[in-house]
Amino acid sequence: MAKKVVLAYSGGLDTSIILKWLQEERRCEVVAFTADLGQGEELNPAQARAESLGAVKVVVRDLREEFVRDYVFPVLRAGAVYEHDYLLGSAIARPLIARHLVDLAAALSADAVAHGATGKGNDQVRFELGVYALNPSIKVIAPWREWSFDSRSSLLAYAERHGIEIEKSPTGESPYSMDANLLHVSYEGGCLEDPWQEPPAAMWKLSCPIEQTPDDPEYLEIDFERGNPTALDGKPMTPAVLLAALNQAAGRHGIGRVDMVENRYLGLKSRGCYETPGGTLLWTAHRALESLALDREEQHLQDDLRPRYARLIYNGYWWSPERMHLQALFDDVQTHVGGTVRLKLYKGSGTVVGRRAQNALYDEKLSSFESDGGAYRQADASGFIKLNALRLKTIAGSRRTARSKQGKS
Amino acid sequence: MAKKVVLAYSGGLDTSIILKWLQEERRCEVVAFTADLGQGEELNPAQARAESLGAVKVVVRDLREEFVRDYVFPVLRAGAVYEHDYLLGSAIARPLIARHLVDLAAALSADAVAHGATGKGNDQVRFELGVYALNPSIKVIAPWREWSFDSRSSLLAYAERHGIEIEKSPTGESPYSMDANLLHVSYEGGCLEDPWQEPPAAMWKLSCPIEQTPDDPEYLEIDFERGNPTALDGKPMTPAVLLAALNQAAGRHGIGRVDMVENRYLGLKSRGCYETPGGTLLWTAHRALESLALDREEQHLQDDLRPRYARLIYNGYWWSPERMHLQALFDDVQTHVGGTVRLKLYKGSGTVVGRRAQNALYDEKLSSFESDGGAYRQADASGFIKLNALRLKTIAGSRRTARSKQGKS
Amino acid sequence: MAKKVVLAYSGGLDTSIILKWLQEERRCEVVAFTADLGQGEELNPAQARAESLGAVKVVVRDLREEFVRDYVFPVLRAGAVYEHDYLLGSAIARPLIARHLVDLAAALSADAVAHGATGKGNDQVRFELGVYALNPSIKVIAPWREWSFDSRSSLLAYAERHGIEIEKSPTGESPYSMDANLLHVSYEGGCLEDPWQEPPAAMWKLSCPIEQTPDDPEYLEIDFERGNPTALDGKPMTPAVLLAALNQAAGRHGIGRVDMVENRYLGLKSRGCYETPGGTLLWTAHRALESLALDREEQHLQDDLRPRYARLIYNGYWWSPERMHLQALFDDVQTHVGGTVRLKLYKGSGTVVGRRAQNALYDEKLSSFESDGGAYRQADASGFIKLNALRLKTIAGSRRTARSKQGKS
Amino acid sequence: MAKKVVLAYSGGLDTSIILKWLQEERRCEVVAFTADLGQGEELNPAQARAESLGAVKVVVRDLREEFVRDYVFPVLRAGAVYEHDYLLGSAIARPLIARHLVDLAAALSADAVAHGATGKGNDQVRFELGVYALNPSIKVIAPWREWSFDSRSSLLAYAERHGIEIEKSPTGESPYSMDANLLHVSYEGGCLEDPWQEPPAAMWKLSCPIEQTPDDPEYLEIDFERGNPTALDGKPMTPAVLLAALNQAAGRHGIGRVDMVENRYLGLKSRGCYETPGGTLLWTAHRALESLALDREEQHLQDDLRPRYARLIYNGYWWSPERMHLQALFDDVQTHVGGTVRLKLYKGSGTVVGRRAQNALYDEKLSSFESDGGAYRQADASGFIKLNALRLKTIAGSRRTARSKQGKS
Repeated sequence: MAKKVVLAYSGGLDTSIILKWLQEERRCEVVAFTADLGQGEELNPAQARAESLGAVKVVVRDLREEFVRDYVFPVLRAGAVYEHDYLLGSAIARPLIARHLVDLAAALSADAVAHGATGKGNDQVRFELGVYALNPSIKVIAPWREWSFDSRSSLLAYAERHGIEIEKSPTGESPYSMDANLLHVSYEGGCLEDPWQEPPAAMWKLSCPIEQTPDDPEYLEIDFERGNPTALDGKPMTPAVLLAALNQAAGRHGIGRVDMVENRYLGLKSRGCYETPGGTLLWTAHRALESLALDREEQHLQDDLRPRYARLIYNGYWWSPERMHLQALFDDVQTHVGGTVRLKLYKGSGTVVGRRAQNALYDEKLSSFESDGGAYRQADASGFIKLNALRLKTIAGSRRTARSKQGKS
Repeated sequence: MAKKVVLAYSGGLDTSIILKWLQEERRCEVVAFTADLGQGEELNPAQARAESLGAVKVVVRDLREEFVRDYVFPVLRAGAVYEHDYLLGSAIARPLIARHLVDLAAALSADAVAHGATGKGNDQVRFELGVYALNPSIKVIAPWREWSFDSRSSLLAYAERHGIEIEKSPTGESPYSMDANLLHVSYEGGCLEDPWQEPPAAMWKLSCPIEQTPDDPEYLEIDFERGNPTALDGKPMTPAVLLAALNQAAGRHGIGRVDMVENRYLGLKSRGCYETPGGTLLWTAHRALESLALDREEQHLQDDLRPRYARLIYNGYWWSPERMHLQALFDDVQTHVGGTVRLKLYKGSGTVVGRRAQNALYDEKLSSFESDGGAYRQADASGFIKLNALRLKTIAGSRRTARSKQGKS
Repeated sequence: MAKKVVLAYSGGLDTSIILKWLQEERRCEVVAFTADLGQGEELNPAQARAESLGAVKVVVRDLREEFVRDYVFPVLRAGAVYEHDYLLGSAIARPLIARHLVDLAAALSADAVAHGATGKGNDQVRFELGVYALNPSIKVIAPWREWSFDSRSSLLAYAERHGIEIEKSPTGESPYSMDANLLHVSYEGGCLEDPWQEPPAAMWKLSCPIEQTPDDPEYLEIDFERGNPTALDGKPMTPAVLLAALNQAAGRHGIGRVDMVENRYLGLKSRGCYETPGGTLLWTAHRALESLALDREEQHLQDDLRPRYARLIYNGYWWSPERMHLQALFDDVQTHVGGTVRLKLYKGSGTVVGRRAQNALYDEKLSSFESDGGAYRQADASGFIKLNALRLKTIAGSRRTARSKQGKS
Repeated sequence: MAKKVVLAYSGGLDTSIILKWLQEERRCEVVAFTADLGQGEELNPAQARAESLGAVKVVVRDLREEFVRDYVFPVLRAGAVYEHDYLLGSAIARPLIARHLVDLAAALSADAVAHGATGKGNDQVRFELGVYALNPSIKVIAPWREWSFDSRSSLLAYAERHGIEIEKSPTGESPYSMDANLLHVSYEGGCLEDPWQEPPAAMWKLSCPIEQTPDDPEYLEIDFERGNPTALDGKPMTPAVLLAALNQAAGRHGIGRVDMVENRYLGLKSRGCYETPGGTLLWTAHRALESLALDREEQHLQDDLRPRYARLIYNGYWWSPERMHLQALFDDVQTHVGGTVRLKLYKGSGTVVGRRAQNALYDEKLSSFESDGGAYRQADASGFIKLNALRLKTIAGSRRTARSKQGKS
């Protein structure tokens, strides 16, 4: 039985109920921990609410720079995308929170941590694998899997009974659940569950509907060093400031919406919508820069490993040794990725219109149909083709012979 | 020394010069073969020109349905894309032409084939690997690597000397080279060689500039069976007819432009632009349908093999055993891919707004936050997480112990 | 609550206790199913024992040919080995038993199946994933995870209480647990748990200690068609008969012992010893034949996929779609694997001393240092090397330039 | 036209002819470079011979420690094996020699390097890719591809004409070609070209025939740190000294013979025999240690990348960026590989009989069937299995439904 627990507290209804439930039902002292990941909400009310609900201590931390520098950028360097479309916005927030929960528990001599993720989703896995990897002897409390509430209404009744205010949404029940941080907003559940239905236009928070985007394109340039974005239009910026600026610009032009059916780690499919305006620009620009700065085999090696790396992160293995070893490989490659990419933002698309690398492997003269000054001898291509064809000829000869012996030639 | 050669003849200046050169310099009888792959040009003039230049025989074949059914659709089923963006439009046209060259050579007792691909590009490799794989004892003549012309002007002088008409482009020299078929138009060379410059707006042939696309979206539905598109808006169509219709619709909305720097098989980088309007819709729709129809592990297995399969095709290994074995795997998966996808075409984007599968593995009830009637027990997630965490805990325990022994904990 | 259950019954003490426990504690009718997989024991006593313990029906099936043909040979065709050494002998027996459990349950209108695998091992997973994949609505009872016995002695007390005879081993407690079938015998637990200790010499059942093997080598030849063994020393044999004959020969020469620490699916490591005499010869011979019959890229494609395929089977995913899709690829490759391999059996090793393929891609003349009649032009190698070096030169030039700019050259 | 060339000079007939030919036919000054890689020959005679043949300078370097430390051990850390059996003994010697050729050329202001590898083999590729990667502007002379000798006898005539002594082998022509260094001896060509024939018993140089090995086993222990061997039987040794000692011990017991048909990079198959006595023990011991020291996912990640890494090295890409990036990953993993392995050497086999790791992830208590003090709850396995089965059940339900709708159930 835990005595003191650090709760990942969002300030919302569910984790407020958990804050109370941990005290009432589990007889724990509760430390409420709230992280500012750029979710775009004022955090003072959360702090006040936690105090009013009996938290023995409330800790609020601004983790925006840490989030972008140590979680968003490593994934960007790896160019990771889950199932072709999801930029892993929630999947990398969880291990960061897990790390702070574990650190706080150590600092405050708590013997447990708790989170508000439900029992069907990925986030519970991401929180808990992170926590266990960082502290194998800590206890984890996952109220959604443990308590006896069997419906939304019994939960609300509990809230009312304990004086926890229930925000009324104008239209009653929220039609889907959301998660937001500096990289993205995600939407799932509710009206999104029918994959034949388009998401409601009003759902999207960060990106302008294309119908309302400016009729003139906007151009911007992003600088990279060692695979990390460092400046916008030539102006150096910290990671979080740069990403926030890109979110503004891309959102204005309706960029970064994703609507997909994805495979959760727990074995079921789920429809998810995502808005990742700035991130979409970063991923696009980064890949364009790699096309100049990296060698073919470096690119292809990364291509072959990216899906695996993305799955690790999606499934909650951020703090696993295999994720870190893969990161070592990606980061070794990325030492060569520096330069500038120019993007055109217009009507929902962020298109690369220029790329320039510090040590470009692209050689205009070499690839030109015009004379290249002897760097490339066309005659070499004959030997190259002949020897690459050798095994195909052998197969054709040998297996054809076999076929004709069988009268099937 | 070849006596009779089948030439892949486009009707353009370069292959016309080759037609003459083969007769003059190599003392060959030349059979001119022209394939209709939907490149959108009248082929009668090509036929007439070949005859006038001395071809002993001219063969024109309409290969549009074969191209789409046997080359485009297999690649679509595999979901293959080269280096994230290139849908392989030229790479799959070459093996088809190689096949017809080899067949014609056998039928007409020719002992060689010839093509007009240059010595720095991928197409020479694709032609020749295809030809050798299908007939290991045939001779291949690649004039661009063999003749003594050392400049464009010496080539034009030869043409003039032999009465080969040189089409004057209005602006003189063409600013880039193009290749077209029913799947795409490609552009490379010339003014595109500077990767910091945006392609000229006038270059694009198939897709409307977004500035001029309709202000109202267009919706369409594509049906699939076993991974192949079979109908548009409920109307069954043959492969080539369906792709042509999609090209029209997608082109109208400015969909399918790609501008990239790619890695050629011969070891150099090249800037390529592509227009693949209908293909872009097909790839997008197919992937969306897979998200409902395929199991996670089926999707991830495909994800892991796609880059490899795409590289094989890009590099000219269409007729290799390894490409065919991979195809066997993809096609085995694709038996389960049937259903309908609804797309919205608007301002340069083809967005999936609905998907419906015949045997969907997506189960709305299961993924819902609401009650699922017991199909999923949240308590199971505890065991799932605990056992997946077991090795992470062991690592944390063992390697931490080690660290503390060394006084570094 | 299940009413009628089909139990995988081995005839040993543990499943005998389960047979009784299911009746007593779960109030089920029990059908006992015993499979003959070539474990080398008389099965009549098992049948009699099950009847005496109250089974409402006892089914014994000779599955030896099915086991070797449909489970051993597919894995052989794929050349699969788990963690470099384990030939998957137990891992492929479970899905076969699962299939028969499910079939029997359907035939006898049973609503559940049960097995005697413990709660820490792989076999519970293999049984249950197999059963659920074949019948998603059937119930599985896993007594080792469900009952309340908390020690070996409480289990034995239960047996004694219910008149279940406890075989006394001469030395008391068995020093390790075993599983046997026509492919292998496995050993784990007990004295094997210390990975610094050599296994006891008396443990090994199928292979002669090398100290006692014959001083003269034995030679034998195995024929293959489409990747499957078909004859021994020219004599056609059914799969099970052939494997049994190889077990005899290889065992005589002390071949096929493995001693390893392996990673279980449940997240822990375990020391396992295996004896796979005939299987070791088959895997060795098959690979040698492939080296003549398959193309390099066919071999390398298989090499890249084998570990993944082996893990699927080890982890219990025999009946998963991804295992079957991979099998489709391997089997597509294996259509080309036919021929004969000659092996020398001597002092613990089965060494290939000759291989001959039906449509060998090995071409003695081509690989010879002597003249090959022009099939290979050495000058082609220059072009091949030059173009493969092109990107390396570009890198050296570009990144060196970069280095010298930074004064670090 | 090169003026001064550094020749990789072995002291044998072929490179002696080349030494002369470069002076006579190419009018070059020749620097002879001979590397001591532990090939087991006295190098003074080579030095004298080069001088007598007119070399302007002769450089002999003892590279044994560099070879083992910087080439053998990295490959061992990666656990790389080409096509299941070849430990890459020649493939890693070439890039080392390439490095010294390039360094010497720079130091001595030579503008070219030359080697004696023939035009069908892998070594020419390995030399030249290495040289070009290290110095993109250097010239490479490959006499075997360039000179006009069209038979062995014309070559010998040239030697005689120039006073180059031709060693007479007792039986005339050598029956196969060999390459030796501290890691291995390789044999190919001649009588080995028939893959149905056993290699001649007299061929093997390093390993005793099993018929003559000691009747008593020998035990030894190897210590590892960070994946590198550091001590033998507790006695610290430098890399080359340790490998030499292992070669002695393993050779005495007939360990390390390989006889295979392999796929050369140039597209043809070749029969190769190898003797790698000490290396075989190292690879075996290293893998055994990894089974304790590494996590499952670390091991499996390495398993998936090993074949690719081995192919890179086999094909000559030692100095490529992709090989180095993969090395970064392997070396990141190997930081955790420390401990001791005990081996039994007996009758041709080196068998692991004990392993012990510094921070073992193997936990005897955890894997035991006996009580583990609560570290593992068997009930967790239910949830683990249930959720891993969820997708299989969904498939079975959905695709079965489909089948029954079609009346095929």
